[in-house]
Amino acid sequence: MSLITPLRDERTLVLKLRDAITALIDEQGLKPGDQLPTEAELTRKFQISRPALREALKLMEQDGAIYVKHGKGRFVSAAAALQVERPITCFESVTDMLHKSGYRPTNRVLSISEEVASDEVREALRLEQGARVIRLERLRMQGDEVLVYCLDYIPRSVIPDRLYDIDWSGSVLDLLERHGSRPRMSTAVATSTLLPNDVSERNDLHDFGPAFLITETTFTPTGIPVIFAKDYHRGSRFSFSFVRK
Amino acid sequence: MSLITPLRDERTLVLKLRDAITALIDEQGLKPGDQLPTEAELTRKFQISRPALREALKLMEQDGAIYVKHGKGRFVSAAAALQVERPITCFESVTDMLHKSGYRPTNRVLSISEEVASDEVREALRLEQGARVIRLERLRMQGDEVLVYCLDYIPRSVIPDRLYDIDWSGSVLDLLERHGSRPRMSTAVATSTLLPNDVSERNDLHDFGPAFLITETTFTPTGIPVIFAKDYHRGSRFSFSFVRK
Repeated sequence: MSLITPLRDERTLVLKLRDAITALIDEQGLKPGDQLPTEAELTRKFQISRPALREALKLMEQDGAIYVKHGKGRFVSAAAALQVERPITCFESVTDMLHKSGYRPTNRVLSISEEVASDEVREALRLEQGARVIRLERLRMQGDEVLVYCLDYIPRSVIPDRLYDIDWSGSVLDLLERHGSRPRMSTAVATSTLLPNDVSERNDLHDFGPAFLITETTFTPTGIPVIFAKDYHRGSRFSFSFVRK
Repeated sequence: MSLITPLRDERTLVLKLRDAITALIDEQGLKPGDQLPTEAELTRKFQISRPALREALKLMEQDGAIYVKHGKGRFVSAAAALQVERPITCFESVTDMLHKSGYRPTNRVLSISEEVASDEVREALRLEQGARVIRLERLRMQGDEVLVYCLDYIPRSVIPDRLYDIDWSGSVLDLLERHGSRPRMSTAVATSTLLPNDVSERNDLHDFGPAFLITETTFTPTGIPVIFAKDYHRGSRFSFSFVRK
């Protein structure tokens, strides 16, 4: 098996590697306490560099899937049985989440505007009083059905271009990457609620039902907040997995 | 500061230590890239053993709060700024979660019964066809308000006592601990939904609104599933934090 396919970035490679090693553990029927193949075997098998492999193994150790006995090697942990697919704790775009859930959604831009940041937005993005933000309001649709209502706030300073020169229908993460600020991690809060009344009214979404709201602040690798988002997922369509320990 | 207080178990000590070290980083104003005090300093300061300290530091490394440079020591990571309070990924009982959220709830047992496990319950608890489970249905109340509707399934083999000899109003985790099966970790799925119709009808919960449903399988340290639970949290009262990376 080769992982030499076009990769968006180093992070993607490491995540793919992690998934490939997890699949290998499964294929080889390795049980808790069993030793993993050596680094040499794994680099050969997946045709990747030693540093990338170590990053992936580190991630698995952090996830509790494997553990290290110094001088002895890496072993499958009991908690490995607790791995869930696509945990909510993996940072990913709404677009990627939808694709992995089997949807091929289209994005409908409802509005794009510039405004003075509200207290909530200012606090999340650590902006000065009076700072300006871009406000992007979108629907993620599968055919006629609205899957997610998304509200994004981005500091104006991060994207200084004219708003109408930009295609807002694509991934905001990709857009920020082109502006040198690709987010890599976030803090988030989830709750159960209804769509805001005005959103429901304007878009005829009275049938949306209970929404799984994720309020999320995303950061660059150096810890600068670049997006504050509120994503209302149609509850009947989505569920999110995680491990607790 | 001394951590020598009555502790329920080793796990509790390690978690307390983690919190204490996190607080220390904050108090001392340590920033990303700054080095942590040495192990010797930390064991002296907190009056704890070296193995317990290392467990706590390991946990912080897994959480991404600190990182290790081999031969150099431990350092505060940029992701430390992303720590959230009481993340949803920390395993805790509903009772503890409610207490930490500032509630002093009472438990109302709605029903306790024994039944043949349904396919869903059997699969979660890895039981044989025809295996029997205890079904416990409870409300967590703050005064007159229902905060959480909880449904628990426990393999009958784990608690062989007569059902009516047991006080079901307390913590199920404590109960299982007394039966030698204290859970330590879980896999969970969250979604947004409404209360089941019959629950809403029987308990006059028409005002409950959108529920944050956590469906959770909890495991002993050796990976044996001992509780399958569905907890419906009143959405207007609860939100759950996490870090994504």
